[in-house]
Amino acid sequence: MPAYDPDNIFAKLLRGEIPSTRVYEDDETLAFMDIMPRADGHLLVIPKTPCRNILDASPEQLAAVMQTVRKMSQAVIKAFGADGVTVQQFNEAAGGQEVFHLHVHVLPRREGDRLRPPGQMGDKERIQAQAEKIRAALKAG
Amino acid sequence: MPAYDPDNIFAKLLRGEIPSTRVYEDDETLAFMDIMPRADGHLLVIPKTPCRNILDASPEQLAAVMQTVRKMSQAVIKAFGADGVTVQQFNEAAGGQEVFHLHVHVLPRREGDRLRPPGQMGDKERIQAQAEKIRAALKAG
Repeated sequence: MPAYDPDNIFAKLLRGEIPSTRVYEDDETLAFMDIMPRADGHLLVIPKTPCRNILDASPEQLAAVMQTVRKMSQAVIKAFGADGVTVQQFNEAAGGQEVFHLHVHVLPRREGDRLRPPGQMGDKERIQAQAEKIRAALKAG
Repeated sequence: MPAYDPDNIFAKLLRGEIPSTRVYEDDETLAFMDIMPRADGHLLVIPKTPCRNILDASPEQLAAVMQTVRKMSQAVIKAFGADGVTVQQFNEAAGGQEVFHLHVHVLPRREGDRLRPPGQMGDKERIQAQAEKIRAALKAG
């Protein structure tokens, strides 16, 4: 496995060098909206500390990320009245990974929906509005 | 969310009431081969204690399951010379869940492959042979 690249886009995002629509953070993790959403409310959870993917993640990084994934899954169900949540996590290019900083996809789902194809930029205002709903659901607890 | 059903098939599998091809277990988790593999070496990781999915899992259950997912991801890369791993986890029917005991899919991947469509029974002998390779990779450490 190649070494962690400290200039991957999520590392830059964590340093505030590129913009992101953040919905939640704690000491160990950050959750922000995917700019190419495959479902309304599609967000990503990452650790604040470096690791490439699940293969080199520490138990602490994984545990913290999954706790936030759980929290965000509950939040999107509240925020959108979603019927379910699909969680995906890709490791290395063959596994579907494109950014080499561990990240977990949280995809709100509705009965009978289909995920949109990957790689399509979402509408910025629409994503902002969805982020606002998720923040409100988190605030309501 | 409906209550946990103690007669779901993974609960029965944990109690040994239905057969499974086990590749790893520790005090908190079990890993076994998926009988409808979407990739060669497709396996599932579950907690030994009851929870429906990520929405009601405890921090301890999630942390333990993800540690085993990590261990199994490393093992399938060794066992099959896989180039990557796709991790999927489904919550409620709309999220893709069919068995309502928390489980995480570990899918070994190769450059340029495609996952097979869901719902197709795998060949038993082939799955047994893959399980043997995974066990050997775990033994080799």
